[in-house]
Amino acid sequence: MTDLKRIGERAKAAARQCSKLGTNKKNAMLAAAAEYLRRGAEYILAENKKDLEAAAGLTEALRDRLTLNPARLEAMADGLLQVAALPDPVGEGLMMKTLPNGLTVNQVRVPMGVIGIIYEARPNVTSDAAALCVKSGNAVILRGGKEAINTNKAVVARLREAFAPYGPEDAVQLIEDVSRETAAEFMKLNKYVDVLIPRGGEGLIRTVVENSTIPVIETGTGNCHIFVDESADLEAALSVVLNAKTQRPGVCNACEKLLVHQRVAPEFLPAVCGALAAKKVEIRGDRRAASVVSSVVPAVEEDWGREYLELIIAVKIVDSLDEAIEHIAKYSSGHSEAIITADYENARRFAQEVDSAAVYVNASTRFTDGFEFGFGAEIGISTQKLHARGPMGLRELTSTKYIVLGSGQIREM
Amino acid sequence: MTDLKRIGERAKAAARQCSKLGTNKKNAMLAAAAEYLRRGAEYILAENKKDLEAAAGLTEALRDRLTLNPARLEAMADGLLQVAALPDPVGEGLMMKTLPNGLTVNQVRVPMGVIGIIYEARPNVTSDAAALCVKSGNAVILRGGKEAINTNKAVVARLREAFAPYGPEDAVQLIEDVSRETAAEFMKLNKYVDVLIPRGGEGLIRTVVENSTIPVIETGTGNCHIFVDESADLEAALSVVLNAKTQRPGVCNACEKLLVHQRVAPEFLPAVCGALAAKKVEIRGDRRAASVVSSVVPAVEEDWGREYLELIIAVKIVDSLDEAIEHIAKYSSGHSEAIITADYENARRFAQEVDSAAVYVNASTRFTDGFEFGFGAEIGISTQKLHARGPMGLRELTSTKYIVLGSGQIREM
Repeated sequence: MTDLKRIGERAKAAARQCSKLGTNKKNAMLAAAAEYLRRGAEYILAENKKDLEAAAGLTEALRDRLTLNPARLEAMADGLLQVAALPDPVGEGLMMKTLPNGLTVNQVRVPMGVIGIIYEARPNVTSDAAALCVKSGNAVILRGGKEAINTNKAVVARLREAFAPYGPEDAVQLIEDVSRETAAEFMKLNKYVDVLIPRGGEGLIRTVVENSTIPVIETGTGNCHIFVDESADLEAALSVVLNAKTQRPGVCNACEKLLVHQRVAPEFLPAVCGALAAKKVEIRGDRRAASVVSSVVPAVEEDWGREYLELIIAVKIVDSLDEAIEHIAKYSSGHSEAIITADYENARRFAQEVDSAAVYVNASTRFTDGFEFGFGAEIGISTQKLHARGPMGLRELTSTKYIVLGSGQIREM
Repeated sequence: MTDLKRIGERAKAAARQCSKLGTNKKNAMLAAAAEYLRRGAEYILAENKKDLEAAAGLTEALRDRLTLNPARLEAMADGLLQVAALPDPVGEGLMMKTLPNGLTVNQVRVPMGVIGIIYEARPNVTSDAAALCVKSGNAVILRGGKEAINTNKAVVARLREAFAPYGPEDAVQLIEDVSRETAAEFMKLNKYVDVLIPRGGEGLIRTVVENSTIPVIETGTGNCHIFVDESADLEAALSVVLNAKTQRPGVCNACEKLLVHQRVAPEFLPAVCGALAAKKVEIRGDRRAASVVSSVVPAVEEDWGREYLELIIAVKIVDSLDEAIEHIAKYSSGHSEAIITADYENARRFAQEVDSAAVYVNASTRFTDGFEFGFGAEIGISTQKLHARGPMGLRELTSTKYIVLGSGQIREM
């Protein structure tokens, strides 16, 4: 069994060093890493080929995620440089006040410490996550999917070589033992790891939430809704629904559920179902929707809570804004929801009352993304309310501390 | 067994209502609650007496914590009014930007939702925690110690009566079944509870961290250090150490460990040990400290990590600032640490390199407190790095969401 305690200790020591590195040093580490990935391309691609050969039984989609090629490796190297170009969050002052007794209290942004990432088969997560953690002054322990182990080992070895002249190579460590036992043990490493971020499917995230003693940031499950209000511009509604469902159906901000106000259902539903069907979307729906569009397959209760991540949508006719808000409150995963409306008060109420990380008026849910929001990068999209909510960039990988400067003050009572 | 699912559902429904209450309504709830506590004083004190009679076996300190009297009840009512007077954190805008495609992205502060509090025998936590949660637009589920169950029932009943005319009475619910099984089940209620805050001793906090599937904010353990540098003003150092150790030894921001630079130890150590002994403090120490002051009791390894919460201190002589920082990194609980120094560079390095919620230069650690920092109230002091660190006020009981306003935007790639 891997000595996780040893990995934890090394990460903690590296984190202390990383927290003291200036921005220039951290950027040099990332620039060197990009260079090493490029120079090591041949070896990394050969290791990736081993993984692909070992993974003969994978679905086509998973195979595609696992596959590296020169262009994808180049994109990984570019990603490192993009993170280097972002502003450094460490040291930002958040608050400064002078107390009546003369103490000055300063709240400053500091690195989180040691960040753990548990993820599945995408090798680009390895370099992306390392870059974001290092830029924000942290050390990272990665535990990737077993399918990508050879690729991950090759990538992490290059990153560590690249880091060594500028900072601690233990800023990034990979858990090479991909057994479930070791993953379970990793989740209990709260003595060394300050936050654990699972990136992957619902099953992985549930396992981590239920078993981790490390504070977790839940990411990614998106059962996203679009509500087409009775006042909606139906042309805009059609364009938004099509975009949110079909532009990239496998991602967490894709639309999975369509709620349509009963007043516009007779006109809108046939149009939207026709357009979706033309894009090969399977349409499920409640009884009322099926009575308007005969090709709608009856949905079962389980459908309303599901994240499909493929070309399936479930449609429901609702009587009112209130019913739409209630339905979303009951079934949504709290990721992204949109209303299409021309009515000011309905827009206001939807925005205020829907409790999700991102709430849209007249726009596609697909915009919930760190790059789109202008954060420059993203480590994931938080669907919990603690610490971070929505797309997480560099700031969300930091904590704060109070620095209090005095001249001998003591407390009187 | 208590139907916790039912309590969770009611809390979730109440949280949705609470999130829509304006500041005036929430303040009216708290003012009414203060009035109801006053009017119900006789009954509450009688119920408290029952608890005290049932708790014959408690230590004097625990008995004192459990005891209510007219003055303490009045202070609880006053506490409710103080929270009402604080600014409402809900709806505060944190960021607003317009994206190149014309979308406006607004990040606003919203209530957390449902907050769970697990605590021990202090009845004032019941009203304090309820007030802070309600003011920040949340619903709260309280699980207090079994010793205080009658008092807590009486207090919560008054709060619920007071709330009913202005908002949901389920804004505060008490788990009346104080069995361990129900507490364990409560910690798994992540479907309904957004954050769980344990308030109490180390054992309670460890149990919650290890068993909860709800995101937890760890509070309170304070193994706080003071380092007296070679350049320190020794008179100021003496006054700060005495204050931090003896002014209120049972609290988490009290000093538990004293590190003294070897150059000033021969002069400072006898003086500080004499002054501490005069205040009845038991002094433990490493071999070098014992060789300077013969009354020092030898410390064992376990001493360095302990939070005494009583009139005991452990003293260690160190050779350098670096050794002090290393010692703190190894043994501190990350609550509050102080350096007493006249040297600018040592002050700067200590403030930057010590990784605790609050780091002091030339001041007592006793100031780590929501009231002292000017937050007006405090639900606890976080010693973790996720979400909140240091004293937690109303803002720390909120989350954020993105409201994105568009005019039909769809994502191109």
